[in-house]
Formats: sequence, C-alpha cells, structure tokens
Amino acid sequence: MVVKVFGPDYGNPKRVLVCLIEKGVEFETVPLDILKGENRAPEFLKLQPFGSVPVIQDGDYTLFESRAIARYYAEKYKHQGTDLLGKTIEERGLVEQWLEVEAQSYNPPINDLILKIVFGPLRGLTPDPKLIEESEEKLGKVLDIYEERLSKSKYLAGDFFSLADLSHLPLTQYLVGKVEKEYLIRDRKNASAWWDDISSRPSWKKVVELWPGLY
Amino acid sequence: MVVKVFGPDYGNPKRVLVCLIEKGVEFETVPLDILKGENRAPEFLKLQPFGSVPVIQDGDYTLFESRAIARYYAEKYKHQGTDLLGKTIEERGLVEQWLEVEAQSYNPPINDLILKIVFGPLRGLTPDPKLIEESEEKLGKVLDIYEERLSKSKYLAGDFFSLADLSHLPLTQYLVGKVEKEYLIRDRKNASAWWDDISSRPSWKKVVELWPGLY
Repeated sequence: MVVKVFGPDYGNPKRVLVCLIEKGVEFETVPLDILKGENRAPEFLKLQPFGSVPVIQDGDYTLFESRAIARYYAEKYKHQGTDLLGKTIEERGLVEQWLEVEAQSYNPPINDLILKIVFGPLRGLTPDPKLIEESEEKLGKVLDIYEERLSKSKYLAGDFFSLADLSHLPLTQYLVGKVEKEYLIRDRKNASAWWDDISSRPSWKKVVELWPGLY
Repeated sequence: MVVKVFGPDYGNPKRVLVCLIEKGVEFETVPLDILKGENRAPEFLKLQPFGSVPVIQDGDYTLFESRAIARYYAEKYKHQGTDLLGKTIEERGLVEQWLEVEAQSYNPPINDLILKIVFGPLRGLTPDPKLIEESEEKLGKVLDIYEERLSKSKYLAGDFFSLADLSHLPLTQYLVGKVEKEYLIRDRKNASAWWDDISSRPSWKKVVELWPGLY
C-alpha cells in the first residue's frame, strides 16, 4: 500500500515529503486547493478535523500534523534510508529538543512574515513595516542562538543530520525565497553554511523541483 | 544521580514534573525567579540559551523544551511507571499527533488568555475584551474537535492515558483556575469528563499541591 500525502503544494506537507524521500518510502500525493476551500469539504474533515494539511493515509492508518507524521516514519523505518532520530535515547532527546525549538520559536516569526509579505498582498493588504520588523527581530534572536549552537556542532542535534534540521527546510525555503529575507541567514556564518548543507540534499532539491508551490 | 528540574513554579515545567512522577523517576527542583530576571543570568543561559524554563540536568546531560524532556523520560523508562507512549508505533504516532495539536492549537489561545487576564493586570494593563473573546472563540473551536474525538475514545490518542493528555494538564489548570474560563470545558460533556479524569490523577494532584504556582 502506497502512502498518500494530502496537500503537497503547501509548506508543512513538504516536511513529510522530504522525510519520506530520505527514508526511501514510496508515496503518492493528493493535491488540495485551500483557496477553493477543499480543506473544508466534509470528506476531508473526516480525515483532518482541523481542515489543515498535511494528512496521510497509509492503508487504514490516518495521521495528521507534519512533525508527528515525520516522527512516525522516521521510527517505523528506523533502519532504512537516513537515520533521522539519532543513535541513542540521549541523541533522540536532543533531536526532540531542537524540533520543539523549530516548532515553538523558529517557525512562528517566519510564518508571520509569510502571512504579511506573501499572503497579505494577495488579499489586497499592505504589509505593516513595524510588524515585519518585529518578526525579523524575533527571528534574528533565534538565529543568534542557532549561530552559537552551530559553532559547536555541524547540525542542530549534534554531528548528524536529523529530523530537527529537516523540519526547518520548508519555511526557511520561503524565508530565502518569496519572503526575500535571505540576509537573516547569510549574515550568520554558521547558520549560512548549515542552510547550504541541508538545502542541497538531493531529497530537498527533489521536493522543491517537483512541488515548487509558492517558493 | 537525581534529575534536577529548573523552574517548578511555572506552567511548562509542570509538564516535566507530572511526567517524572508518572514514571517514578526521582528528582529535585531548582526554583528560579523570572520576575527577578534569574532566567537571564549567564550561568542559566549556559543551560538554556533562550532563557526559558524548564531545563533539566541529569548527570552530564542537559535538556530543555518541556515536551522534549517528557518524551525523553517516557522513552528512557518505557517499562517503568505509566506507559505514556502507546504499545505500538501506530499508537505512538497518535500520541505524537495529539501532542502536536496541544502544542500548536490548544496551548496558544490559553497562553494568550493567561497573558491578558493574569499577567497583564500585574503590569497595570487592562485586558481588551475583544482580544479575550477572540482567544476564547479559537479555543472553543479546538475544544469542539476534542469533544467529538473524546466521544470515540476515552483519551486523546486512544483508550490509554498518554503524554498527549498529560501535556494538557498545566495550562488547562490555569484555564479553569486563575483565567476563570472553566465553562469552556464544562459546556462540553466529553471534554469535561476527560478533564475530571486526567486532573484527578495522583501525579497531577501532587504537582498542584507541592508547586501551586499561580494556580
């Protein structure tokens, strides 16, 4: 049974796509047009009651929330493809720590920038420069901590590429793309080298090539 | 070596405390006064560069982010105390799914209510009724989905108490306590029964008794 991934053109589902490619798991994608409200259709809400993407169907098993799905496949296929969880429980702890930092501290200001700079104008709204500056400042402070961390280890959780790094790919791609704030990464030597490293992985290049979405 | 937990009087560290009690892991707490800026002291920032709580020290191992710490101990002591991760990889997937829902959708509106209703007035700010109503509406929509989910299974991830339920304890306690919005839970039959169940666990009663914090 091939895994079905709903909503490949959006940011969060790409976290799942790149994970499945890293793990060598076969999948197919089911496009969904959120602007047309397809995420509010009763059939879709049965799979994902919040009406958001991604959601996966794997035989009888349905799962939503991109980071939960990525963890599930990273664990289910622990010994196939790239090991994304670390070798020990202690390494996994650090993977989880930086995955939480991504979700709680890194993602929110980028999400704000995307809403204000990319989606606001599509709805005829003019971005407020003060709010944009606030989000940039918040993100800058998080990146200062990354810069220090990445001076001590090649990747966030240690000297191995993990789910924590992978999880940063979709929104950072937005940041250096349509959001046009690449300087936030480039002004920081270690963060810049880290971004070059993780974004040049064949798995991520494939995702961006096949589902360019709004990048 | 006894586990040290920093910041027991605040909300997020209680996620760790209740987890350690459920797992039967011995620990000691290190109080920290955020109002006095002790979280910005250089020694503390070495442990937790973001200056937030909790952080744990377990011998040479340091870990921050409450949900990452809870996962670490739930996995390290898988066969000791209450099993919080499910029996199969599929059950763990659902635990992770609802843990993400808690972090991404349930927690943020309660956090907003706490900031506006509890902490705002401490700093001389008058809560804006419109913003409070917006947060209540957001949370109500999330709780509608919980109500439906809890009509099908006793707990969020299935018929077993898990890290997903446990993770809701600290902020829901605020919601029904100082925030004075217990009606959001009580108006929903299944959510109300679920809250009674999880909040009456001896582990949680002990946490609230020993570290009443701002409840």
